[in-house]
Amino acid sequence: MAQRAQRRLHLNAFLMSTGHHEASWRLRESDPHAGTDIAHFVRLAQTAEQAKLDSIFFADSPVLWGSVAKRPTSALEPTVLLAALAVATSRIGLIATASTSYNSPYNLARRFASIDHISGGRVGWNVVTTAGADAARNFGLDAQPLHDDRYARAAEFLDVAEKLWDSWDDDAVLADKAAGVWGDEERVHPVEHTGRYFSVRGPLDIPRSPQGRPVIVQAGSSENGKDLAARYAEAVFTAQQTLEDAQAFYGDLKRRTAAVGRDPESIKILPGIVPVIASTEAEARRRDRELDELIRPEYARNELAGVLGLSPRDLPLDAQLPEDLPSEDAVEGAKSRYTLIVELARREHLTVRELIGRLGGGRGHRTIAGTPEQVADALQTWFDAGAADGFNIMPATLPGGLDDFVDHVVPILRERGLFRAEYEGATLREHYGLARPIPVRAEAVPA
Amino acid sequence: MAQRAQRRLHLNAFLMSTGHHEASWRLRESDPHAGTDIAHFVRLAQTAEQAKLDSIFFADSPVLWGSVAKRPTSALEPTVLLAALAVATSRIGLIATASTSYNSPYNLARRFASIDHISGGRVGWNVVTTAGADAARNFGLDAQPLHDDRYARAAEFLDVAEKLWDSWDDDAVLADKAAGVWGDEERVHPVEHTGRYFSVRGPLDIPRSPQGRPVIVQAGSSENGKDLAARYAEAVFTAQQTLEDAQAFYGDLKRRTAAVGRDPESIKILPGIVPVIASTEAEARRRDRELDELIRPEYARNELAGVLGLSPRDLPLDAQLPEDLPSEDAVEGAKSRYTLIVELARREHLTVRELIGRLGGGRGHRTIAGTPEQVADALQTWFDAGAADGFNIMPATLPGGLDDFVDHVVPILRERGLFRAEYEGATLREHYGLARPIPVRAEAVPA
Repeated sequence: MAQRAQRRLHLNAFLMSTGHHEASWRLRESDPHAGTDIAHFVRLAQTAEQAKLDSIFFADSPVLWGSVAKRPTSALEPTVLLAALAVATSRIGLIATASTSYNSPYNLARRFASIDHISGGRVGWNVVTTAGADAARNFGLDAQPLHDDRYARAAEFLDVAEKLWDSWDDDAVLADKAAGVWGDEERVHPVEHTGRYFSVRGPLDIPRSPQGRPVIVQAGSSENGKDLAARYAEAVFTAQQTLEDAQAFYGDLKRRTAAVGRDPESIKILPGIVPVIASTEAEARRRDRELDELIRPEYARNELAGVLGLSPRDLPLDAQLPEDLPSEDAVEGAKSRYTLIVELARREHLTVRELIGRLGGGRGHRTIAGTPEQVADALQTWFDAGAADGFNIMPATLPGGLDDFVDHVVPILRERGLFRAEYEGATLREHYGLARPIPVRAEAVPA
Repeated sequence: MAQRAQRRLHLNAFLMSTGHHEASWRLRESDPHAGTDIAHFVRLAQTAEQAKLDSIFFADSPVLWGSVAKRPTSALEPTVLLAALAVATSRIGLIATASTSYNSPYNLARRFASIDHISGGRVGWNVVTTAGADAARNFGLDAQPLHDDRYARAAEFLDVAEKLWDSWDDDAVLADKAAGVWGDEERVHPVEHTGRYFSVRGPLDIPRSPQGRPVIVQAGSSENGKDLAARYAEAVFTAQQTLEDAQAFYGDLKRRTAAVGRDPESIKILPGIVPVIASTEAEARRRDRELDELIRPEYARNELAGVLGLSPRDLPLDAQLPEDLPSEDAVEGAKSRYTLIVELARREHLTVRELIGRLGGGRGHRTIAGTPEQVADALQTWFDAGAADGFNIMPATLPGGLDDFVDHVVPILRERGLFRAEYEGATLREHYGLARPIPVRAEAVPA
C-alpha cells in the first residue's frame, strides 16, 4: 500500500556549557569548566549528528552577562566555535548567533561565508540586535541604541550582507590555467551600498559559498522582531509556554511572511522546550525539582530585577511581582523576553521565588518533565496542532540531557515517522527543506 | 662530554592557497580552488606540525585585493580558519592576521581568547593597520585613515585588548559546587577604558586563556611599525633582501625594544624567505624561472602601479621605474612595502618586467633557489650573523613547496642542532621561548 509522504519535524539542539538550567553546573556529573572546553562541544555536536538532528545552535551576547558567581556565563565566541566544530562533524547544521548592532557587515558576512565553505554548506546565522546597555558600553556607547533603531540597522545589515554574499556569481571562478585567468572580473560585482547605517563598497573577498548564503535565523518576538523575521528569516526560535500562544505566534508569523510575498513554507518555526526525561513522570519531576533547589535565589533575583528594570529590593522572594510594571512599549531592552516573563508570572500567580524556579530551568522556555513517550507526545501535539515546524531542544543538563533526548525521545519520533532516519541532504538548507537563494544582483554601477 | 646548549632557530610556515608565487595556481599539480578548501589547509597544518615547526601563519586584509583574474586572491577569513585548524592539530602554533583599523577591540580580543582556549594555548595575532582606500571603503570610509592615525589607533587597540585579556584573574573561576559560587566577582575586573579611539567597559566574557594573551606578532617595517613592534610585539615578520639590510633591521629593532625597557630576547625576528628547492641548483633555478614565465605581466603591472600610486601607462614593461617617485614620507599606504619595492628596483636596476618577476615570487621577500644544503646554509648564515632569530617560510608552491622544505631542509637544520627534534612545550609561547604575560591590572574603578 502506498504511503502518503508524511510531514516531518525539525530538531535543533541549543547548546551551552553544562546545560540550560542555571544550576546545572552544580550537579556532581557536570564539568564547571565545560564552557571553554572544545572537547565538550565536539562531543555534544557529534552526539547530535549521530542522532541526525538538523542543527546545533549557540546563543551569544558580546558582554559578560549576569553574575559570574551564579553560573558559567562565559563562553567561547560562537563563530570561531562553529568553525572548530565544522571539522569535527560532517553532516549536522551549525548555527551561531551574532549581533547586527556591534559588528560590521563586511567582517561578519565574510566569517559566515568562510564557515559555510569550511563546513561544506552547513552554516546558519541567528541574527540578534543585542539588548542592554552593558553590551553597548563595550562598543563605545553610553546606552543601548533604541529598539526601533536597532531593528532598522538589523534590516540594513541584512541587506548589505545579502549583497556581499551574492557579489560573486556562482560561476565566477574560471580557474583557466592555460589562459592564466583565475576569476572572471565580469562575474565579481561591487556592492556599492550607501544607506543610513552602512556604506560598503564590496565585493566580498571570497567566492560564493556552498549554500549561497547562510540560513538566516531569528529569535525576537517583539513586533519589530516578527516583522524582521517575516522579511528575512528562514528559521525562527521562539519561547512559548502554552499551545494557544504557540498557535497564535505560528499563525501570525506565517501570515506576516506571506504578506511580504514569501512562501510561508520558507520559514520554519521552532519553539524552545526544556526536556527533563526519566523513566517515570514522578522521577522526571523530582529531577526538575532537585535542579530548582540548587538555584541560589539572591543571584537569580538580581538578574530578574535587571530584566524588569527594578531594584532587587522591589522583589521580595515570597511576594508576586509589583502591580505597576511598565508596558512592553516602554521597554528598550529585550521586549519579547520582558513580556514573556511578566505574563508567565501574572498568568500563574507566581511568587518571585516560584518565577525564579521557572526561569532558571529554561529562561522562560517550556519545561517538559516526563517519560520519553510523554515528551514525544507533547512535541507531536504541538506539531500536529499548527504550533510548530519543529523544536529547539534546550537540555537542562549537558551532556546528560542531550544523551537522554537522542537516546529515548528521538527513536520514538522516528518510529512514528515524524523524524528522519538518515540525513537526506548535505547542507543545512537541505535539512530544513529550504531553497538555495537566487542572487539578488546589486544595482548596476555607472563606470 | 657535556654539550653547550645551542641557540635554536624558529620556523614559521606562511600559508596561502596554492603558494606565494602568484602564478603557482597555474601549475598542473595545483588545485585552483585550494583557497577555500579546508582539507588543503588541514593537510598543510599537519605537515608543518609533523616537522615540529613553531607555527603556521595566515595574512589578511578585509578587502578583495588585486585582480581576481590574476590569481586566487580570495581566502577563508583567518580567525575562523585558525579555529578549524586548532581541532585538526595538537601542538603547532596558529597565527592569524587581523586589522586594528577595521575591528572592535572587544570582538577581536574575544575571538583570540576563544581560539587560545580551543587550541590549548597555541594562538598568535599578527597585528596590522591595513593600508589602502579599498579596504576603508568596505567600512564606511571614503579614504584610508592617515598612517600616523592608523598606528595610534593600533597602539590604543592593543592597550584595550591587553586589559580585556587580563580582566579575569587566572584563578577567577572557583567552581565551588557546594557553595553554589561559580566565579569570584572580586577577581573579574571591569576595564573602564576611555581613550582617543575606544571606550570599552569590559570585562571580557571569557576566563583568561591558557597563554594569558595571544602571542603578538607584527610585520610593518616603517618607523611607526618598528616603534609599535618594540612596544608590543613578541615576533616580527620582515622582508629583507640582503644580509646587511637584515642585520641593520635586526639590530635596530632589538635596540628599540631595549629602549622601551623590554628584554631584546622577548622579541623574535623572522625574515621571510621563499625557498625553491631541487636536487641541483640549476634545477631549482629552472623551476623558479618556469614559475616566473607563468606570470601574466599585464595583471601584475596593474597591481604594481596601484602600490606605487601610478597609472599602468607610466610603467613600460621593459623600462626601469620612473625617476620621480614620491618618498616614503609622502605615502599613506603600506610604507615599508613601498620602499622595499622601490629600493629593490633601483639597487638591481630592474626593468618593470624583471621587477614583476621578483615580486611575483614572494612579493618582495627573498627567494632562495637551490639545493637543500644551499637553503640550509643560507638560513644558518643569517641566523649566525645576527640577522634573524628564525625564518618565515613562504613556499612558492603549496603543498609541494612545504613538503620539499620539511622533507629536505628541516632534517639538515636538525642535524646541525639548529632546530628542535621534538616539541618541548605545549603552547606557542613555549615554542618561541616567550614568557606568559603577567596581568596588567586595570586601574581601580571608584564605586
